[in-house]
Amino acid sequence: MKVTEFIKPGEVKVVDEPMPKIKKPTDAIIKMVRASVCGSDLWWYRGISDRKHGSPVGHEGIGIVQEVGSDVKNVKPGDFVIAPFTHGCGHCAACRAGFDGNCMNKENGINGGYQGQYLRFINASWALVKIPGQPSDYSDEMLNSFVTLADVMATGYHAAASAEVKDGDTVVVMGDGAVGLCGVIAAKLRGAKRIIAMSRHEDRQKLAKEFGATDIVPERGDDAVKHVMELTDGAGADAILECVGTEQSVNTATKVARPGAVVGRVGIPQKAEMNTNNLFFNNTGLRGGIAPVTTYDREVLLKAVLDGKINPGKVFTKRFDLDHIQDAYEAMDKRQAIKSLVIVDKD
Amino acid sequence: MKVTEFIKPGEVKVVDEPMPKIKKPTDAIIKMVRASVCGSDLWWYRGISDRKHGSPVGHEGIGIVQEVGSDVKNVKPGDFVIAPFTHGCGHCAACRAGFDGNCMNKENGINGGYQGQYLRFINASWALVKIPGQPSDYSDEMLNSFVTLADVMATGYHAAASAEVKDGDTVVVMGDGAVGLCGVIAAKLRGAKRIIAMSRHEDRQKLAKEFGATDIVPERGDDAVKHVMELTDGAGADAILECVGTEQSVNTATKVARPGAVVGRVGIPQKAEMNTNNLFFNNTGLRGGIAPVTTYDREVLLKAVLDGKINPGKVFTKRFDLDHIQDAYEAMDKRQAIKSLVIVDKD
Repeated sequence: MKVTEFIKPGEVKVVDEPMPKIKKPTDAIIKMVRASVCGSDLWWYRGISDRKHGSPVGHEGIGIVQEVGSDVKNVKPGDFVIAPFTHGCGHCAACRAGFDGNCMNKENGINGGYQGQYLRFINASWALVKIPGQPSDYSDEMLNSFVTLADVMATGYHAAASAEVKDGDTVVVMGDGAVGLCGVIAAKLRGAKRIIAMSRHEDRQKLAKEFGATDIVPERGDDAVKHVMELTDGAGADAILECVGTEQSVNTATKVARPGAVVGRVGIPQKAEMNTNNLFFNNTGLRGGIAPVTTYDREVLLKAVLDGKINPGKVFTKRFDLDHIQDAYEAMDKRQAIKSLVIVDKD
Repeated sequence: MKVTEFIKPGEVKVVDEPMPKIKKPTDAIIKMVRASVCGSDLWWYRGISDRKHGSPVGHEGIGIVQEVGSDVKNVKPGDFVIAPFTHGCGHCAACRAGFDGNCMNKENGINGGYQGQYLRFINASWALVKIPGQPSDYSDEMLNSFVTLADVMATGYHAAASAEVKDGDTVVVMGDGAVGLCGVIAAKLRGAKRIIAMSRHEDRQKLAKEFGATDIVPERGDDAVKHVMELTDGAGADAILECVGTEQSVNTATKVARPGAVVGRVGIPQKAEMNTNNLFFNNTGLRGGIAPVTTYDREVLLKAVLDGKINPGKVFTKRFDLDHIQDAYEAMDKRQAIKSLVIVDKD
């Protein structure tokens, strides 16, 4: 079977590998239908983070359950599923509290291979999210939206949930990548009245507005803070979604916070050390981390997609088949695509 | 009239000063009945923070409204009131959001003089909290509990509210000073099922248990983390109240957090720089700051005291009259009292 592997920084390749096998009773084998490239994949693609040569890549997709281990009860062969990048067991303290992205029973070191024909998926019984019917029952656009429920839409939602966005709020979204754009969708879904998108790229500004942004702030740093303060009559925002992770973005996020507001962050932090006194003296909260994908999909996101309330699949501005996976990465690396879709199985 | 002033580190003194006057239409003059010494007063008393020689001190107390400015509508002369250390205007974005401790219309530089016979209180119309009846209608114990509603009980409550303590939670309270003990009361009031108090002093452990603590952890640092993890079957706490502010305490607080739990902090942070990556990768939240005293008093705390549900006045383990104010400070400085009560007016 074909699966994408990391060769070296700047190069991925589809190679033939043996079919994956059930190794534990909690495993499932998924026949992938569609996958995608994540902004976080660019970290190792660009050589910023290390990755083992020959390791299978990709952590977002949808597919059909092919085979299940003996302990997998929630899904059965033939089921159409979202394959989240998280692998919650569903019964540890973290999963029970709704933080399955921090599952205490996850197996480390196994995360990749979604950009391939078949995938061994661990903790399959709870973590997989069943989609009613079969792929052929859905439009192309809706299939794309399902793919976003494996990571990016749930991650954007985690920013909004961590920032505790509620009805009527004025929200600032830092970052106009696919996660930030999904943050805009999430803020609107949670009832935000005003959504200020920090964006300097015209195509992304347009999509942000389509998703519900009411204002665009193209500036960065102190100028951005000033602009947001003007827009909010000096009050600052009720909730801030930090979807970038750079030091400047995190700083700006904390500076546009109304006293008591929470910065919900999902951008992998670039700098660990942070002056938290500024947070304390403004009662600014800081929350966020790895999204609990299965929890959000089940509680709110799958229904919102099925009901046509949200269309996050629009973040895919380019599509590729598996044989052109290198192009899919390059398009994102060169910012030619907001996010690259990968068609694995055309049937 | 008599009021306590700061002389030099280690020395306060009751001096005669002219009667305070209404300066702004939003002012009120309060005839103080009872006051108290705050743990944060020890910062300047011990010379750790600077304070101007001769400045009036004290920021907690109850009293009778003597006179009001023309814009003060919510209280009138003769009313029995809590005089919070905060001075929320009630109408700025921070106050409206329930964070009146960060009122955007506060006048800086005016905070002190509560340990005296008469007090000029700014933003009096909204910030003062009316207590039904007169001091003579209440027991000595209840009067003491009212005094705690000017700061310490509201601050403990802010730790619990910031940590988002909810029904059934397992809560860790860092700090066994008066604020930490009030944090225990607050956690119980919000429905915590299990309350682990970090305390190494027998008298404070006893009071913590009386207030609702179910477990005591006397260790510090890594040993404390280990003990809490044992008590919670490796899961960590659902909510953590940080009522100390030292680097060690803040670190321990973050290390005993279950994924997704929030550290609610009210201890003035000793160290600004903090590694927040650990928070991110555990989805640990960090919230807190200056308590919104008036909001909490009105929404929950005054009623809880009046109904006899909470008895925070028990944190006063020694009492003094105004003429012995130096002894009141010394008792706290030398840890002979958990908190010192100051009787201003015996009538």
